[in-house]
Amino acid sequence: MTVSVLPKSAQAPASPARPATSHDAMRAQLDQDIAALLTAADLPSPLLDACRYVMTASGKRVRPLMVFSTFASIDSSAHAEQDPAESRYDMARRAALAVELLHTYSLVHDDLPCMDDDALRRGQPTCHIVFDEATALLAGDVLQTLAFEALHAELPTFRPSDALIASRLSAVFAPRARRMVSGQMLDLNAEASSSIVQSELEAIHRDKTGALIEAAILMGGICAGASDAQQAALIEAAKAIGLAFQVQDDILDVTMSTDDLGKPAGSDEKLDKSTYVKLMGVETATEYAESLFATGRAAASTISKDSDAAQPLVTLIDWLWARKK
Amino acid sequence: MTVSVLPKSAQAPASPARPATSHDAMRAQLDQDIAALLTAADLPSPLLDACRYVMTASGKRVRPLMVFSTFASIDSSAHAEQDPAESRYDMARRAALAVELLHTYSLVHDDLPCMDDDALRRGQPTCHIVFDEATALLAGDVLQTLAFEALHAELPTFRPSDALIASRLSAVFAPRARRMVSGQMLDLNAEASSSIVQSELEAIHRDKTGALIEAAILMGGICAGASDAQQAALIEAAKAIGLAFQVQDDILDVTMSTDDLGKPAGSDEKLDKSTYVKLMGVETATEYAESLFATGRAAASTISKDSDAAQPLVTLIDWLWARKK
Repeated sequence: MTVSVLPKSAQAPASPARPATSHDAMRAQLDQDIAALLTAADLPSPLLDACRYVMTASGKRVRPLMVFSTFASIDSSAHAEQDPAESRYDMARRAALAVELLHTYSLVHDDLPCMDDDALRRGQPTCHIVFDEATALLAGDVLQTLAFEALHAELPTFRPSDALIASRLSAVFAPRARRMVSGQMLDLNAEASSSIVQSELEAIHRDKTGALIEAAILMGGICAGASDAQQAALIEAAKAIGLAFQVQDDILDVTMSTDDLGKPAGSDEKLDKSTYVKLMGVETATEYAESLFATGRAAASTISKDSDAAQPLVTLIDWLWARKK
Repeated sequence: MTVSVLPKSAQAPASPARPATSHDAMRAQLDQDIAALLTAADLPSPLLDACRYVMTASGKRVRPLMVFSTFASIDSSAHAEQDPAESRYDMARRAALAVELLHTYSLVHDDLPCMDDDALRRGQPTCHIVFDEATALLAGDVLQTLAFEALHAELPTFRPSDALIASRLSAVFAPRARRMVSGQMLDLNAEASSSIVQSELEAIHRDKTGALIEAAILMGGICAGASDAQQAALIEAAKAIGLAFQVQDDILDVTMSTDDLGKPAGSDEKLDKSTYVKLMGVETATEYAESLFATGRAAASTISKDSDAAQPLVTLIDWLWARKK
């Protein structure tokens, strides 16, 4: 990790001046920012322990990677004159934190006994198993709060939040965080229903999984100063990738082991969930996921005339397609 | 919803230009804004029904009244040149919505079986009793999201959010929403502990109740363009009022009936909760609440050289002291 050589002002904290480029460096940046945020948040025990437990589990960090990769894809092309690069990168770090906090809160609540009642997540016992239901409930609640706090509040190791960018981020983020909950409700409704067609399944996942993926990609773009045309391309890419990601999740649930997944394999079937595999079989679902990833890749490639510029986002899409958990 | 690029003038919706002044008018404004927000939010059934159910119950609307009353107390004095009054008032409406949404989410989750397991709230069966636990969990989750969406997103019947004010509001709001959850955790910890002293009890309520009251008063001030000195006075008033409000809640729990309260009277004693009444008896607790309200009233009176200007906030404090539920 390089350290800023010339702080912008006396307030500017020590922070990496150069955006992380490899996935490992992005994850390391996020891990560092999670640790700093939770230390600063001053939560009482066992709430802090529960938040640390779920936020430091070995997640893939897909959504933060989307923020950072989109940021890197747009940022390399233009807009450097608008703001100092360090300040924009710090906003991308805040956005990456926000999407991971929000995603993790949704997992913690989704695992509760009144929801999916899951005992294993990210390769470890779920939050309410290790702590208790009340603590898991409050941990999920406060992780959602921290997601918005990460965008707006004063935080150690971050430059002051850029109010205009932060407000645009929340305006994109909050409605999609709301759609994620709508998707969870639709998913519960679907469990109670005997049959479901593809358009209904896609409507569920457009909200449940797709909305936050769209938020992550758009937020990375906003931090980098994406133009309207670039944002339109990002939305198109995000819609395809979000759906592809869910189709692939359904496939992995039946083709991989519990050890590989870090959560119970075959749980969709156990819960009689509507999935793409149930709807169209593994083979057709795999072809469908591949074509969606290709669509997303093509849209992502158009965000810059310089085909190399979009490489971080394209690389991420290729990595997602190749993932095995 | 994406951030609009249209000029403000092109999209100003029909909306009351004059701030509500009576408590009834403030509540009517809030009710109207809640209805519009929930219609726009496009939530699936039964999530929408659950949100409507809890948001339209007959609450006192204390926190929105704090936003509007503080706004009216500061706004009458100065700052009219900074922004159009209508735009600032719309931000106060957004802030009032946000604090009520956040407060209500905390009640819905607090009533869940894994928390206080309460069956009655605001004079009606609790959310998880009428719907089910999963729906109540998701309703609480999405009400928190909507609180932040209300500050930042495009909404029908509101002028576009002022990005700079909205970001300042979230920077004040989010850390206090986080402290509210910390307070709930401290409260659960205290239930497990055999005895508790006054300083510990105050630490719990500074977070659990006080933080959101502080947020409401500060947010009203920010929308009205409060100076640093005014904000300092508002914080002092808020700290006293927040504590007074909780002491009074503890008193009402033992002196009023379930019918009057709209929630089970005597529930603190049933749950063996640490309260000011348990700590110091009803009489001393009443004297303590009165002195705290007087401190809050005195601090509120200093926000303007013109003693009439602070009248809306002082009137609210007097009304709070006189409340019987």
